[in-house]
Amino acid sequence: MKSLASNDFLIRDAWYVVAWPHELTADRPLARTVLGEDLVLFRTPEGQAVALEDRCAHRLAPLSRGRIESGGIRCLYHGVKFAPSGQCLEIPAQPQGHPNMCVRHYPLVERDGFIHVWMGDPGKADAERVIDASPWASSPHWKPSRGYLHVKAHVSLIADNLLDFGHLPFVHPNTVGAAQQADFATEVRPLAEGVQTDRWYIDVPASAFHQSVGHFKGRVDAWHCFRWHLPAIMSLNSGSAPTGTGAREKPHGSREGAIEFHHIAALTPQDEDHTHYFWVHWRNFALDEPAMTDTVHRNIMAAFSEDQAMVEAQHAAIRRGAQTVPKAIMADRALSLVRSQLARRAQGSVA
Amino acid sequence: MKSLASNDFLIRDAWYVVAWPHELTADRPLARTVLGEDLVLFRTPEGQAVALEDRCAHRLAPLSRGRIESGGIRCLYHGVKFAPSGQCLEIPAQPQGHPNMCVRHYPLVERDGFIHVWMGDPGKADAERVIDASPWASSPHWKPSRGYLHVKAHVSLIADNLLDFGHLPFVHPNTVGAAQQADFATEVRPLAEGVQTDRWYIDVPASAFHQSVGHFKGRVDAWHCFRWHLPAIMSLNSGSAPTGTGAREKPHGSREGAIEFHHIAALTPQDEDHTHYFWVHWRNFALDEPAMTDTVHRNIMAAFSEDQAMVEAQHAAIRRGAQTVPKAIMADRALSLVRSQLARRAQGSVA
Amino acid sequence: MKSLASNDFLIRDAWYVVAWPHELTADRPLARTVLGEDLVLFRTPEGQAVALEDRCAHRLAPLSRGRIESGGIRCLYHGVKFAPSGQCLEIPAQPQGHPNMCVRHYPLVERDGFIHVWMGDPGKADAERVIDASPWASSPHWKPSRGYLHVKAHVSLIADNLLDFGHLPFVHPNTVGAAQQADFATEVRPLAEGVQTDRWYIDVPASAFHQSVGHFKGRVDAWHCFRWHLPAIMSLNSGSAPTGTGAREKPHGSREGAIEFHHIAALTPQDEDHTHYFWVHWRNFALDEPAMTDTVHRNIMAAFSEDQAMVEAQHAAIRRGAQTVPKAIMADRALSLVRSQLARRAQGSVA
Repeated sequence: MKSLASNDFLIRDAWYVVAWPHELTADRPLARTVLGEDLVLFRTPEGQAVALEDRCAHRLAPLSRGRIESGGIRCLYHGVKFAPSGQCLEIPAQPQGHPNMCVRHYPLVERDGFIHVWMGDPGKADAERVIDASPWASSPHWKPSRGYLHVKAHVSLIADNLLDFGHLPFVHPNTVGAAQQADFATEVRPLAEGVQTDRWYIDVPASAFHQSVGHFKGRVDAWHCFRWHLPAIMSLNSGSAPTGTGAREKPHGSREGAIEFHHIAALTPQDEDHTHYFWVHWRNFALDEPAMTDTVHRNIMAAFSEDQAMVEAQHAAIRRGAQTVPKAIMADRALSLVRSQLARRAQGSVA
Repeated sequence: MKSLASNDFLIRDAWYVVAWPHELTADRPLARTVLGEDLVLFRTPEGQAVALEDRCAHRLAPLSRGRIESGGIRCLYHGVKFAPSGQCLEIPAQPQGHPNMCVRHYPLVERDGFIHVWMGDPGKADAERVIDASPWASSPHWKPSRGYLHVKAHVSLIADNLLDFGHLPFVHPNTVGAAQQADFATEVRPLAEGVQTDRWYIDVPASAFHQSVGHFKGRVDAWHCFRWHLPAIMSLNSGSAPTGTGAREKPHGSREGAIEFHHIAALTPQDEDHTHYFWVHWRNFALDEPAMTDTVHRNIMAAFSEDQAMVEAQHAAIRRGAQTVPKAIMADRALSLVRSQLARRAQGSVA
Repeated sequence: MKSLASNDFLIRDAWYVVAWPHELTADRPLARTVLGEDLVLFRTPEGQAVALEDRCAHRLAPLSRGRIESGGIRCLYHGVKFAPSGQCLEIPAQPQGHPNMCVRHYPLVERDGFIHVWMGDPGKADAERVIDASPWASSPHWKPSRGYLHVKAHVSLIADNLLDFGHLPFVHPNTVGAAQQADFATEVRPLAEGVQTDRWYIDVPASAFHQSVGHFKGRVDAWHCFRWHLPAIMSLNSGSAPTGTGAREKPHGSREGAIEFHHIAALTPQDEDHTHYFWVHWRNFALDEPAMTDTVHRNIMAAFSEDQAMVEAQHAAIRRGAQTVPKAIMADRALSLVRSQLARRAQGSVA
């Protein structure tokens, strides 16, 4: 079996969420590391969002200590200036320029409240493959809460955590997990580039969180419907509806009186020991209540902090004792599927 | 000459003190690393003290974050449960179990106020070889003070320190050392698996510590009689008696009016740069005075802190400049004996 | 192109400034690391300044934890004593001594307010090659301000910074740099073992610092005249004079009404990631005003802190992404000259 901290997840030819749009400004560049590469992110005064290698081509000083100017960014060590394309625009006291002076440019897409960068071959960067969050981001019927975690763990361990229902009653007994969840079957099926995982809890008490925001008068039908996108973006629909009202009927039964959430979690490897974790959690109720935005944020972060503590401890244990071999159990089906898809891709049999 | 930070000390087939009995509870597992291996230590609700590898066999999460239950410990990531033997007792949603799911179990002996683990081949673990502290631990005539130090140094450097009388007047001029100690000869003789080292100081003023607790009216005969057990446990008898009363006569002369101590120091390597140091110092006087227990503890820790500062500085100097070759002097006889015994053992000529 | 963090700078057969004279006392030894070697520095009670390897020859305990005694230093682990030559003077309880017991001794010169050590072959240590600061250090017409920085960067990056005028307007726009400096040419010429770099600014406003201490009534002629000594000592003459008074005439025109400074910066590698930076800045005015000594110190440190922040960021960027290749520009001429001299020396074609 391959290592739990599997570098099959570290795909270069992929879009990664690297920042929130508001983090890119024309006032001050942002330094962020993805797949071990240091990026500088900024917005030109003209409004263009840009990602470049965070090393001046002259003597490798960080451009993130530089100054954003009209048309580009200037290194504040010796004043060399670069365009959003990475091409050199100016070398002080050297009007003829320099033929090879440029920094690496990363394709970037700003869409639906995310900044995505492409870390691999720029020729393969297809903006159509960016995850589509428009059904929630562009709709007046959904309201987001957002959060970021910097996790000291390999991306693959966080992916495992998200792909797995088995940990819910043990890691989250008092937050999003509930002991009786284990009694319901999980449907797992492979997609072309990912996995679909569905679980329905029929005729159960609402979870503490759903009860507190949904005020149900009786038992509910609740659901977790995941879609995993390789290498590491999760799109999750969840909710609770009064039991017996047919929420499970497909494509969609009545969801009268239901509360629904849509969640996107984007895992972006900083390096083999750290991961950027961006999440958005949209709700379809209490749209005009800012306090609800905070309530949702607080509840999600409480659960994620429980995951983070466990995953970081697991990561450290693996790093100290890599010789110990893990063993899969039946509950690992979804994450095993994703891992085998990534392994095939790493071996070249998947584009 | 072999490195001062000699890994000949890192013997696997040996008993090591890993904890105090009170540290193992049924409430909360204890994580401790020995010879580079992460252990989880706990006590079942039924009272059994247990040492297991601190990595769940499923996905390597630390069991020290788990929950102690009747009959074993449950990993709180996905709920896999293990018996004190390391065998898997339960996998959630997988009633048929898993044939190879188990964690490494370490033989453990709880005796005379110490928890000992065996780090090597379990088939060779012979509880008879555990150091015998019963003459003091089980007797109403001795009262212990106890302490623990976490030392940032290789076990071999601490062993050298304990095996050496030469440092007393330089490291401890104001605590346990005294300049005139250097005038008395040290008798060193090899044992089957260790060294015996004796030093008698006849007709001397009592040391500051012994005078303060023994209230001698005149000069004393004092002694330090060491027995070193491979790889790294020291058993020391020391004391002061009014001079001329025959304390030195063997097996034992009159010790009327004497104060005596027995000390066990157990050095347990955490890894090549850190050592667990457990010590117990029994006295044969003021048995009913709790304040004396504190006084002894304070005096011992004051001296050990002097050693610790020097040994940690020596360790750091060796790690930064390993190419410099040390040179032995005559005062190194006891520690050189122990090192050559360990070297022979490492080469296989001693069982 | 060789790495920016070039180890050609790490020459062993060279004099390095290691301390200020007042740092070496007979009370307490000083530990300092140069070129990765740990030194202990002290002054005997007889007044001799001494540099030895900071590891006792016996068991490698740091001599910097030892005790300075008449005629030498005693290790406070086991009491072995060494002379300033590194020879062993005494081993406790071993009156016959030990034939090979000695520690490495480093040639040392105390001159003009600096302690210099020779890190290479002692047979090649020629005190005549120590940098000559006597024209300023021994003259009543110059008054020094002094400072020390511990920089987390490779010595070569700091050398680049000092050898380069190009960064002044970008790193120091509000301190020692000024935008119009870029309009004046820099004269660069190689020396036998270093580089001379001169820049004159004719008929300009005085810099903020020079104006604040020189109180000029009109425009000035100002200058920066560098002399670089391999591997890494800079000697700099700078100043401002009322324009048109002929300050530039050689050897020296009238400097009536001018303020002048002489600066020595001595870069001493601690290891490949840290550098000791000693500087002295002499002035030829306000000699009797202690407040001016502070003013100069504060101004120099303000500018150097700007350099330090950039150079440390550059160092970290290089260490994280060593595969990125830098590209030279015309402004790099002086530093490129020094680097090629060092490269030739490293290849053996220069003594």
